[in-house]
Amino acid sequence: MKYKALWLRDDGYLEVLDQRYLPFKESTVVIKNTKECIKAIKDMTVRGAGVIGNTAAFGVYLAAKECNGDIKELEKKAKSIRESRPTAVNLMWAVDRMMQKAKECDTFSREEVLKKEAVKICDEDVKRSENIAKFGADLFENIMRKKGIKKLNILTHCNAGYLAIIDKGTALAPIYELKNRGIDIHVWVDETRPRNQGANLTAWELSKEKIPHTVIADNTGGLLMQKGMVDVCITGADRVSRRGDAANKIGTYLKALAAKENNIPFYIALPASTFDFEIIDGIKEIPIEIRDENEVKFIRGVDKRGELKEIRIVLDNSPALNYGFDVTPAKLITGLITERGICKADQKEIEEMFEDLCSKREIFK
Amino acid sequence: MKYKALWLRDDGYLEVLDQRYLPFKESTVVIKNTKECIKAIKDMTVRGAGVIGNTAAFGVYLAAKECNGDIKELEKKAKSIRESRPTAVNLMWAVDRMMQKAKECDTFSREEVLKKEAVKICDEDVKRSENIAKFGADLFENIMRKKGIKKLNILTHCNAGYLAIIDKGTALAPIYELKNRGIDIHVWVDETRPRNQGANLTAWELSKEKIPHTVIADNTGGLLMQKGMVDVCITGADRVSRRGDAANKIGTYLKALAAKENNIPFYIALPASTFDFEIIDGIKEIPIEIRDENEVKFIRGVDKRGELKEIRIVLDNSPALNYGFDVTPAKLITGLITERGICKADQKEIEEMFEDLCSKREIFK
Repeated sequence: MKYKALWLRDDGYLEVLDQRYLPFKESTVVIKNTKECIKAIKDMTVRGAGVIGNTAAFGVYLAAKECNGDIKELEKKAKSIRESRPTAVNLMWAVDRMMQKAKECDTFSREEVLKKEAVKICDEDVKRSENIAKFGADLFENIMRKKGIKKLNILTHCNAGYLAIIDKGTALAPIYELKNRGIDIHVWVDETRPRNQGANLTAWELSKEKIPHTVIADNTGGLLMQKGMVDVCITGADRVSRRGDAANKIGTYLKALAAKENNIPFYIALPASTFDFEIIDGIKEIPIEIRDENEVKFIRGVDKRGELKEIRIVLDNSPALNYGFDVTPAKLITGLITERGICKADQKEIEEMFEDLCSKREIFK
Repeated sequence: MKYKALWLRDDGYLEVLDQRYLPFKESTVVIKNTKECIKAIKDMTVRGAGVIGNTAAFGVYLAAKECNGDIKELEKKAKSIRESRPTAVNLMWAVDRMMQKAKECDTFSREEVLKKEAVKICDEDVKRSENIAKFGADLFENIMRKKGIKKLNILTHCNAGYLAIIDKGTALAPIYELKNRGIDIHVWVDETRPRNQGANLTAWELSKEKIPHTVIADNTGGLLMQKGMVDVCITGADRVSRRGDAANKIGTYLKALAAKENNIPFYIALPASTFDFEIIDGIKEIPIEIRDENEVKFIRGVDKRGELKEIRIVLDNSPALNYGFDVTPAKLITGLITERGICKADQKEIEEMFEDLCSKREIFK
């Protein structure tokens, strides 16, 4: 891919694409310590389940450098990173894995071990993303064959591309793969209010990769499905329960309902690290983040001169409520596209495919 | 109500609230002739099924003043008003009714007859709105009694208040009536992308009437329903078919799906003039307007200094598609709240309640 969401610099600091100002300003932020790591996750300089996990992993490494071998201090810092956002489970998974390593190794080698582990997590994500790309593209080609169509219309919500999971993303990975295979595709990009990750990030990614796409208001997908203008829906996820309920950006649930009603397959693409095997009922048990109402009331864009501007789009005295995610029940999901293959959003199938991971892992809390 | 969407001036011109700049700028536009009438409807200076119909009715009166008694010329102008927007049927209904009158009367009295007829349509709308308010409020009080709740949480999409149908609106009419009755209510206001009629117009109306409300992204309603935070949904409509399929602002369909899934009653409020008795299958037969992509790509609001600004929020080279409406199938609608009472979204019940209107009316084309 042309861009990476984050990379470790030679000086040992983490550099990330600043996703708050895309697509209007392409800039980066350097993260040097725990505090900056937490800030970047909270204010969504970085976002997307995978990239949050990667940032957190490097955050634990940076924290170790601040702690001079004090494991208690490191645990405290790691805990604060782990709690920086509540819904995406890759964050917790990455911090737990890093802290497992931190405890296993000696004080002297800890920084180096943690650095290697964070890099390893990223490398594994690249591999996972490639596998999701292949499994997903095969599936989508199959859908095209069965329908007898020469062009595939795909609808996606939010951003689960390379800005969310390195190196090709999850939901967008099969799309990049289809493009590589020379398949004729077109992507309906949900604007994805608030924060507009679809219009801002997914459209930007697809533009960079020269993939035909059209931005639509989040309200539009139902009509397009009713009109037969969508062949398949695919999104990423922030946390998937053991029985297949999927938390993802707010609004995913509404699209899944419309897909079900119109007999359109609805897939969730995710790496195994997005499963939370300790939760069965995702609707009752996955915590849903409430973010600042100003993310609804204010919006960023460019004026006539191309200058970045923020304006208020809601009356000052009208309150707003900003839930970040919703949970799509398993029954609305046609299948889960993972790095190990495709399975139903069904407890038995999930447990079979991820048997080795289902047993209670050690949780760092 | 504190405001009116339009009124006839002493000088015989029509003055309308300019809904394009609300809530950030409260201003009016004076409409003096056919051309200005069509422009105001097309560019959404006026919008909302009823108010479009009222504006068109006065438009026919203004057209007559331009025609010096030439009925052929008036027919041409009326046709161009009738075709200014394709989905809302009140527009066609109002023009047809005005032209019926124009043909019945003599050349000498025509202007006066048309002026009176346009005023009469508005007066009737006020009466219709009042009846909808009462029937709807009784229904909602009943829902509260059955649920045993002291406070009613209502979700609405787009704007069907006094800015859409004089004098109290349709969907908002029962809400205003509940407020008058001293009932504890709270309204979830869908932002309603694009054009944000919820955040811009409904929130403005509710603020003016001091009704507790919260603006939410269009993506949020599904989660709120899943969480039990919505007791009832109500929207207006732009055209309802003989069997009860309802065209309304894009995104209504998605909310109706979520309401059905979560056993939440979903009502459409409409005057009889919103029915199109010549259409049975609303999904196949109601034409859906496609508007300019720039309504998706640009947005208005105020900057820090309170100045009205327009900014671009989508990449310049990403196309957008802007369908204005979708059609909610009758099976998802709990009931239709009309000026004659409440009926099911069902062909038999609709035909029984509106038997006198169901016979083919004369259409001016």
